[in-house]
Parts: sequence; C-alpha cells; structure tokens
Amino acid sequence: MSAPALVPSRPPYRGDEAMAAMLRRAGSRLELPALRRLLAGVNAAPPAENETAWHRLVAPALTPMMIDQLEALRAELAAASPPGFGLDAWDASRVAALRAELARRGLGGFLCPRGDEHQGEYVAPYAERLRWLTGFTGSAGMAIVLADAAAIFVDGRYTLQVTSQVDGRIFAYRHLVEQPPADWLAENAVRGSRIGFDARLHTPDGLARLRAGAARAGAELVALEDDPIDAVWAAKPMPPIAPVVPHPDRFSGETSAAKRTALGEILKRDGASAAVISDPASVAWLLNVRGGDVPHTPLPLSFAILGDDGAVDWFVEPLKLAPELPAHLGNQVRIAEPDAFASALDALGKRKARVLMDAATVSVWIGDRLAAAGAEVVRGQDPCALPKARKNAGELAGARAAHLRDGAALARFCAWLAAEAPKGGLDELTVSDRLLALRRQGEYFRDTSFDTISGAGANGAIVHYRSTPSTNRPLAPGELYLVDSGAQYLDGTTDVTRTIAIGTPSPEHRDRFTRVLKGHIAVATARFPRGTTGSQLDPLARRALWEVGLDFDHGTGHGVGSYLSVHEGPHRISKVPNAVALEPGMIVSNEPGYYKTGAYGIRIENLVAVRAIDIDGAERPMLGFETLTLCPIDLALVDSALLDAAEIAWLDGYHARVRKALLPLVDAGTGAWLDRATRPLAAR
Amino acid sequence: MSAPALVPSRPPYRGDEAMAAMLRRAGSRLELPALRRLLAGVNAAPPAENETAWHRLVAPALTPMMIDQLEALRAELAAASPPGFGLDAWDASRVAALRAELARRGLGGFLCPRGDEHQGEYVAPYAERLRWLTGFTGSAGMAIVLADAAAIFVDGRYTLQVTSQVDGRIFAYRHLVEQPPADWLAENAVRGSRIGFDARLHTPDGLARLRAGAARAGAELVALEDDPIDAVWAAKPMPPIAPVVPHPDRFSGETSAAKRTALGEILKRDGASAAVISDPASVAWLLNVRGGDVPHTPLPLSFAILGDDGAVDWFVEPLKLAPELPAHLGNQVRIAEPDAFASALDALGKRKARVLMDAATVSVWIGDRLAAAGAEVVRGQDPCALPKARKNAGELAGARAAHLRDGAALARFCAWLAAEAPKGGLDELTVSDRLLALRRQGEYFRDTSFDTISGAGANGAIVHYRSTPSTNRPLAPGELYLVDSGAQYLDGTTDVTRTIAIGTPSPEHRDRFTRVLKGHIAVATARFPRGTTGSQLDPLARRALWEVGLDFDHGTGHGVGSYLSVHEGPHRISKVPNAVALEPGMIVSNEPGYYKTGAYGIRIENLVAVRAIDIDGAERPMLGFETLTLCPIDLALVDSALLDAAEIAWLDGYHARVRKALLPLVDAGTGAWLDRATRPLAAR
Repeated sequence: MSAPALVPSRPPYRGDEAMAAMLRRAGSRLELPALRRLLAGVNAAPPAENETAWHRLVAPALTPMMIDQLEALRAELAAASPPGFGLDAWDASRVAALRAELARRGLGGFLCPRGDEHQGEYVAPYAERLRWLTGFTGSAGMAIVLADAAAIFVDGRYTLQVTSQVDGRIFAYRHLVEQPPADWLAENAVRGSRIGFDARLHTPDGLARLRAGAARAGAELVALEDDPIDAVWAAKPMPPIAPVVPHPDRFSGETSAAKRTALGEILKRDGASAAVISDPASVAWLLNVRGGDVPHTPLPLSFAILGDDGAVDWFVEPLKLAPELPAHLGNQVRIAEPDAFASALDALGKRKARVLMDAATVSVWIGDRLAAAGAEVVRGQDPCALPKARKNAGELAGARAAHLRDGAALARFCAWLAAEAPKGGLDELTVSDRLLALRRQGEYFRDTSFDTISGAGANGAIVHYRSTPSTNRPLAPGELYLVDSGAQYLDGTTDVTRTIAIGTPSPEHRDRFTRVLKGHIAVATARFPRGTTGSQLDPLARRALWEVGLDFDHGTGHGVGSYLSVHEGPHRISKVPNAVALEPGMIVSNEPGYYKTGAYGIRIENLVAVRAIDIDGAERPMLGFETLTLCPIDLALVDSALLDAAEIAWLDGYHARVRKALLPLVDAGTGAWLDRATRPLAAR
Repeated sequence: MSAPALVPSRPPYRGDEAMAAMLRRAGSRLELPALRRLLAGVNAAPPAENETAWHRLVAPALTPMMIDQLEALRAELAAASPPGFGLDAWDASRVAALRAELARRGLGGFLCPRGDEHQGEYVAPYAERLRWLTGFTGSAGMAIVLADAAAIFVDGRYTLQVTSQVDGRIFAYRHLVEQPPADWLAENAVRGSRIGFDARLHTPDGLARLRAGAARAGAELVALEDDPIDAVWAAKPMPPIAPVVPHPDRFSGETSAAKRTALGEILKRDGASAAVISDPASVAWLLNVRGGDVPHTPLPLSFAILGDDGAVDWFVEPLKLAPELPAHLGNQVRIAEPDAFASALDALGKRKARVLMDAATVSVWIGDRLAAAGAEVVRGQDPCALPKARKNAGELAGARAAHLRDGAALARFCAWLAAEAPKGGLDELTVSDRLLALRRQGEYFRDTSFDTISGAGANGAIVHYRSTPSTNRPLAPGELYLVDSGAQYLDGTTDVTRTIAIGTPSPEHRDRFTRVLKGHIAVATARFPRGTTGSQLDPLARRALWEVGLDFDHGTGHGVGSYLSVHEGPHRISKVPNAVALEPGMIVSNEPGYYKTGAYGIRIENLVAVRAIDIDGAERPMLGFETLTLCPIDLALVDSALLDAAEIAWLDGYHARVRKALLPLVDAGTGAWLDRATRPLAAR
C-alpha cells in the first residue's frame, strides 16, 4: 500500500510513466530522477509564503492536473520519511551507532557542532546533526562524543532547556563559554587518541582552540572528508531546494555587475586574485539574488569564488534556479554544480593564486584545501561584508517604505491590543498570530525575519523566549507584555520591540521602562565623529541603568540586512570590542532592555540608519542616526519626571513623526488610537 | 695630556694603582676592571635625584678622598667618549658604514626600530640605535635601510620633527601608521634579498606584519644574533648602571614572596611551568625592587623567569645591585648574570617546559630560542600585568599620601602663577622649572614621572609638546596655559594636567573648557558594573564635544603604576578596543582635552582609582572612581550655564575636598588663593 498523502483532498499520484509524459508535454528539462531530487529538496526546505513558488522550477507553465500530480508525488515522498526527518525521535541508539562508526574508522571521538558549512545562524534540516545526535534544538552548541564519555556545550540561553532535551546519563552538560569544549577535551581526551571533526563545519579560529585543548591531553584532532554522522543517520534529508530568484535592481539599488567590478578592483589593490565567499548572504548580495533555503532569511545556500576581474564562479544546485536567473546574472557569472567547488579550489592552488578568505566564516576545509593545492591563503574580511552593510540610496528608500508598511501593521496591532486586552482572553500565541496576520497584508511581505518573541509577564524576562503551547501565558492586567518581531519584505527587513503595559503598570515598571527609554534616546540622538564604532556608543544605552546598579545582558544593537539576515555584521553596538566603524547607510538596531527574572522584561527596539549630519562649526565629519521604525512607545510606561527636556523633545518629535506617517495608512479606529498614543508628553 | 675633568674643582685622578689600593681598604669586592665597567654604566644612566647614590655600589662606606677619586675617574671616562655618546652628531657616513657592514654579511637591508629588548617607552643611550643611525630623537619610529633605498617611519606626533632632524636625501619620510613599514618593504625590497633584523628588538606580533610585507616583494627577513649597528657604532655606550634598591613592604603593600607564590599557583593552574618576564616594570613589581636605568621610571633593566613554585631566576647586572638587595630578595630569587639568560631558556626547552610569554612585550628572540630548544611556548599576558595594575590597600594609601604632597606643591605653584603671571615676564620654561622646584621639596620625591608639557597659547595645542629654548613662549594675557606634569614619589606616581587662563579668557575658551570639564566629570562620576572596560567608558568623556562636532585625538586615560611607569597597562580608557575590565584598585588617568591647532590646547587630567561602590537596590556589583589628584580647576574657564546641577555639585564637592585637604599643608598666601580658587560655583 502506498503511504497516505498529506493533503487528502488531492487525487493520488498516478505513477512515474504518467509523470514523465507530463514533464515532456510541459517542456520541462527535468527527467524523473531529477524531479524526485527536486521534490525531496523542496520537502527539506522551510515553508514559503508562496507555497507554490517552487512549481516554476519544474517548468514555466503547468496545467492544474500536473500541479496536482506534482503535489501528490511530493506528499508521497514526504510520507516515506519519518516526520521531521526523525529529528525529534531521539533515542540512545544514535550515540551508540556513532561510536561504532568511529571505532570502525579508528577514531577515539568526534566533535559535533551546531552549524553547516556556511557557519550561518539558521541551518537546514540536513545539517541538524547536533539535534539528531542529542535531541538539543537550540541555535548554538556543540557535542563531543568520545569512546567512554560525552558532553554537550550550550550557552546561557539554553542551560535549562538542554536538561529537558538531552539525556544527562549520556551527555554531561557544560557551559559553552565558561566551561569551553577545549578544556573538556584537555581533561577527557585519551592520550594518543585521534578525534575526528568535519572540516567543513569548523572555522580556523574556532578549531585552533579545540586543537590546543586536545593537545593538552596528548590527543590529536583529525579532519574528516565525510561526516560520520551522515553514515549513521538513515533518514537524513536532502539539502533544501527553494527557488532562487533575481532581486530586482529597484530593490538592490545597484547592479550585480557594478558590485562585482568594484570588489574585483579592491582584490586587485590588495594583491589578491580571488576571494572565496562562503556566507550565502554575501552571495545573495553580490549576485542580487534571493533564495529560501533556511527560515526567515532568503538565503540561497551556495559558495562563490570572486575573481579580481569581477567574474564569479557560483557553486549552486542548478535545480533551484528560477528560469529567468541565468539572463539576470549575465555571462560574468558562471554557474557550476556544488560538487565542482573542490576542484575549483584546487585550480586556484595550481596557479599559485593569492586567495582571500574570511577566517570567521570560511571553513577549515576550504582553507586547508586551498593551501594543500598550493594557493597562498590571505585571511581577511569577507569583501562583501562592508559594502553589504553600507546600504545604498535605493536600499535605504526601500527600508523606509518597508518600515511604513510595517508601522501601519504595528499600529493596527497595538490599537487592537489596546481595545481587546482589557476584555481578557488574549495570550502570547493568539496575539502574535494576530500580528503576523496584519503584517501579511502588507505589500512585498515574504516572511517573518525571525521567530517572534511574544512574552507576557515573567516570560518577557527570557531574552530569547519563544512561546509554545506549554509556555503560553495570558496577557494579565498589571503585567507587561513584550513583543519582539520583524518581517522580510522585498524592499527591506524590519525588527522592532515594544513593551506594552496591560492595565496599570507599577511604579517600578515605569522607573525601569523610563531608564531603558533614556538609553534608547541616548543612542537615537547620538552625534559622533566618523571612525566611531558601535562599541563606543554602547554605554550610552546603559548609563541610566548603571546609575542605579542595573544593566542588561545582551548587545545594544546588531546590523540588519536589506531583505537579508536580520543579524548582519560586521558592525554592531555592543560591549564586546568591535573595531568596525559605523558608516553612513549602515542599519543597526537600537534595543536596550531590562529584565527581572521571574517578573517582567522590558525592551525598546527601533532600527536606525547611520547618516552624515551637519553641525554648525563642526571640525570633523559627524554622523548620527535616522530612526527607521515607526511605532508608538507606550506612554503609560513613561515617567516624565525622569526625562530631561531634550529627551522629552525627542519622544514628542518621534511620536509626531509616527502619527503623521501612519495616519494616512490606517483605519479610523486605529487612527483614533494613534492620536492618543502619540500625544505630546508636555500635554499630558 | 689626560682629558680635562668635567668638574674642574675636583682633584685630578691619581691613577689606577692608588684606586686599587683604596678599593681594597674600603672593603670593596670590585677589582679595577669591574670598577671601570661600573663607572661607564653610571655614565650611561640618566641623572638621579641623589647624584651620589651609586657610590654605595662600590663599597658600603667611602672616605671623602675616595669619593673624589671615584668622581674623577668617572669624569675622565665620560670625557673620553664623545658628548652624548655622539648621538647628536649625525652624519651620512653612519648609513654608509651600516650598508658596508650589511654587504659584508650578505644582507640586502636592515630593520632598525626605536626600542630595546624590553619594548619599553624609555630606552637607555646604548639602545638609541635609531637615533644614532638617523638623527631622529622621537620616542617611537623605525628606519629601514636597503642597499639602494631607505625610509624612516614616524607617527603623527613627529611628522614635522622628522623633517628637521633626518636627512631627506637619504631617508624617505613615511607615516608609521598610514604608510606602514610592511607596505614600504613590499614595494621596495629586492626580490630574493635577505633583510636582517635584531630579533631582540621585535615582538612576534610586530614582526609578522613586516615578514608578510617582505614576502610580498619576494624578500626574506633574517633574524640576526648580533645587531649590525653595534658593529659600526664606535662610541656605543654601555648598558646603564643605576643602583637597584629594595622597595620596602610599607610602599609595596605586599611581600615579594606572597606575590611570587600567588603567581606560581596561577601558572600551575594554567598548566605552565614557567613564565618569561621581559618587562622591567613587572620585574620591579614582582621582586619589590626599584632601579634607575631609564629616565622618569625607576626600572631595573633585566629579565626574569618565574617558576610555578614561585621561585625566580633574575638575570641582572650584579654590579648595579645595592648591597642589602640579596637579603631583601631571599633565597627563592636566584641572581644570575644577564649572559646566563640564553642558556636558561635552553634549559627550559631541554625539559620540554610549557612556558608562558606575552606576545606584546616578549621578543621574537626569546620565543624562537625557547621553541628551538624544545619548549612549548604559550602566548598569553604577562602574569604580573593584572596584579600590578590592581593596587593593594598599601599602594592606594601611598597614592593618596603622594597626591596630598603633590597637591600642596601644585597649589603653591598655581598661587604663585596667579600672583606672578599678571606682572608678565613668565615663560614656559621658567614656569615649569618653578613647578619642579616646588615638587622637589616634597618628601619621597625621586623624579618627574615624564617630561613636563608646559605649553602656552598655540604650544598648548601640541599634545606631546616639550618646551625648548627655541620654542619657549611667554605666558601672555588672553591666552591659555596648559601644564601636564607628574612626579615619582617612593609611595606613588602622579600625573596631572591643568589648563589656566592667563588674564581674561575668551567665550570660546570657556565653552570648550566647560565641554572638556563635562567629559571629565562624566568619567569621574561614572558608575558601572564589574566587567566594564575602559573602552566602554571612553565616549562619556567625548559626548559634550561630539554634540558640537568636536573631539580630541588621544586616549581618555592610561593606567599608572605605583612608583613605576606613568603609562602602565593592561587597562586604559580609550577608543581603541581593549578587553581588560576595570577592577578595584586600578589607577587610571581621566584626561579629556580639546586642541585648536595654532591657537590653544585644553586638557583636564586627574588620576582616579577604581573602587567598589554600594548602590541601594543594585542588582550587580558596581564600580566607580575615587579621584586621587588634588588641585583646583580654573573657575575662570568654567561656563556654569553649560553645566547641569549634578555637574555643578561634583565640581563644588571636589573643590571643597581639595581645599580641606591642602589648606593645612600650605602657607597663608597659598591658603588665601586656595580659598578663592575653590569657592563654590553656586556662590559666584
């Protein structure tokens, strides 16, 4: 009996012969094996806003019957895999199987990081090896399995979660930062043993520390060409396939050819003849393309080699390229199969090329392969990182337009919340569903830009909270509600946090909120000379909290992409030293907070763009910020006695701008709420 | 005819035989050759406050006649050398001689940095190789001499000075930072050539960049065991000899044994069996000794190897040790000749020791020698750096006492200046001489802690200005006078800057001064959680200037030693990223400024000590500063309209404290001035 289809209303799959005939009739270039590979990849990709977008990868035009058959076959393939690729059905046999595989290869252990060969924040299911091996679902971590010992390393966000997801009888729990894997290796590795690692999943910087730890125990780390977990993970999914489409020049603001030529010149100037680009966000920016291989970020997982002539060799699964893509890319972008990447690195070596690679994002495997082939590897920064961060005029115009749309959705959401919350019955999940539904109505909406943080009361104090049915809390009177959310629009990426009083807030709520607001305003109004880094501005966000012995344990701001990653380098506003100067066009979040464990959380987040400012009599080129986010800040939480005149002027000015921008875009009910929510403090 | 004695009133030297007899009679352990070496070293050391202190190195008690004879012989030796060891009599033959020497050794070039084998700020004459080779007297720089090209690299402080001191027909002028030596090597080194460097004068970090530059040109850098400049510098002086004396426990606050035991434990914990200490300030701190080998800092130039048992091998010229030193050091400190250092490194290698070394201060020569001998070199921080920076209770008590004395001298100076300046006739040099004379009257005074910066009018805008007869300016009405000075007392090191209006200041003077003062107060009153770095506090010092498009181009604060270097790491307050957290006991300067080229300079500098503070309701351990420096801030330059209430309260509070502390220590005239100078702003 065939497996039951996921969508029962569809007709069943009518067989390969009929499908082959339909493919031919539709003019598809795909044979049946390729189609099956495509569908398996589609099943391994995150759900897209447009669920049928992948159909175009089969043929330009499909009949309804053919679509039915494609979906039927896709469902059949999905049903043949265990649900979720077995990722959530952990049992101890997985560790045993890995140990047997290691023994077979003569290895005394294995390092299993959470990450893929692009070192990104989101990974596709095929790369969820840590989750498969341990059951741990967090977004960062590492396991080490030795013959007689194993440990899992997670950071402060996950120290509780790991104990509920991972079997403590097999894995010792360790703090990733305070009890680093290198120290555990030094204490536990067996002298003389060889411990394997997948060289594609580690960067030189990270590996150096692990290697030193192993060396202290007299053990050796050994690079493996094939990951031993892949050998024992029977239901391992395919790499994801989501359509890669052109990102039009009207959104990118600059042609790919212009970007490539400029970067080629920089490579030449620095004496490098090529650069390996391993960050898919950089590939997307450089080629003006977008994909959908991981959640929340329109990445096409792929590698590129940029030459000093501005030409690019792009190693990407051809099945996922939209039909119009080759024409969009032009003949200076040569498309190649992912498998051809290794021999391309060898070819660079053969001609003794000087090759730039970013030691923070490019894997050991790439660096070692280049070096072994004879290339001169120059460690530096991904050459796309800075120009990608400096948004051009077109991208900034897009960001402003996206924030208008986002602001209208937020205003409708806040007005609805103000009306509904007093009636009771709202909870974290219903409220965030409503916000998503409102955002979806905006033009160009494609995705949320990260998992929404919707935290009521004590849940708001969990910085990286994600509401689930089991943690879901009602929005109760006298409590604070914190919602941190964002969207991916074709013209820009948004990220905004508001903290809203449900009912009447306490004096402590208002004191803390106002101190956080003072920090937010200090950043928003900062004026600083060119050359200033985000690290230098960070204390402005904390000073009003420090005054009374308080602080918050996250950065003040992260870079944000343009319809790309909501966390984008190389700049940031953070305590952590960062030598990258803020430059005009860079978008960064401004999000100080305060968290009282078990009680409430406060965060006020707007996105801001760096811009040049004119000051009479200035002796240096000065910069400041343009606030992009348009959404009222809850005045019920502001204690104006704690604000000085300049701070009150900023808040009133911001609210006047929000009101003026959003009023034309919202319904009358929302407009009335907006009028009240943006009234000047002076007039209270 | 013998050379004329330097001090004509003394009787002439009566000959070696008589001296040998006197040495025997005085019970000296010195033979005549050792005595001559000692005297040559004394002549190569900077002048000491107590000019006869070195006599004790000859014998415990000397007759007046013997003293006369010692001084006569010393003068004879000095007269036999060219004045200033020929350092200031540059001619082009020196470069030619070096090139001939390089050719003889088959070298295509040589790197000549400004620095000695301890990488310190001050170097003794024997290590002034850059000055000898080029004529350049600045405190930082490098020359590269190739067969057909040469360049000198200096930073922004010296770009003008270098053109007047160095022959531009021989040396191309380059900016040390913007046109770094590595780039010049890449452009100028001859392919296939071997370029030498003295491995004792370079750190691994610095050399790596130079090596990469040479490699780009296809040239190779070659470590040399003996410096080729030493082979052609005929009148090269000896290493300096100044008495090394115990630093009593009542000043150091902790015994050397306790320090050594604690650091030995830390080495053990980190798995290192020894640490190489190459910074003489660390040696001085660790052994509780002080010397006088370089100006302004009581350093005993020497190396030490600290074992994980707390024992130390100290490689130091035995001639310079005060007679009581061995007893003070105890039997856990083994004294060895400087020449024995190399074999001690070899011995560490032979037993495969894990040896800690600081890659920022320990030379390539040491690291290479250790590695070649078989040691495992661990790069880390000098283990003395942090505990030396965290002053203990005894050192802090000493710092407060030293600042009281320094404050009394400063108050007498300011009162004198207030009375005398209106009469005219004062200039930068007479004024700074007066300040030195007043400081000298204080107990425990040993030296100035750096060359005083005494800048009137436009000279005040030169951040590292040093007044000379040719630059000396009068203190003119309507101008600002900036004086940055400090002293070395046995119980503490001071460093203070005041900017004083001569006559009536302009509104611009007052605006800028008040903005600098706002920055100073923001740092002085900062409250911050443990873990905060000086880099994080830096923008507080600049914000009031940034507001109007101004800034200053130096750090806000540097660490300060305890009767040690006035510039001490590892902490600082600076734009430059620095990951070292401020900790209780650390002393740091708080010195924002503003400089208008060609017009005036403003700087307000106090030393502050980090201390724990209690805040009601604080959720984190909080730190703040105790201001140590006691000297009025010129109220004629304060525009109180630019200050908020908290800033006025700080200034009035500081002045009340200064008045109360200093009034008992000064004469009636100074007291009357002090009363006026510290009046509350509110009462103006």
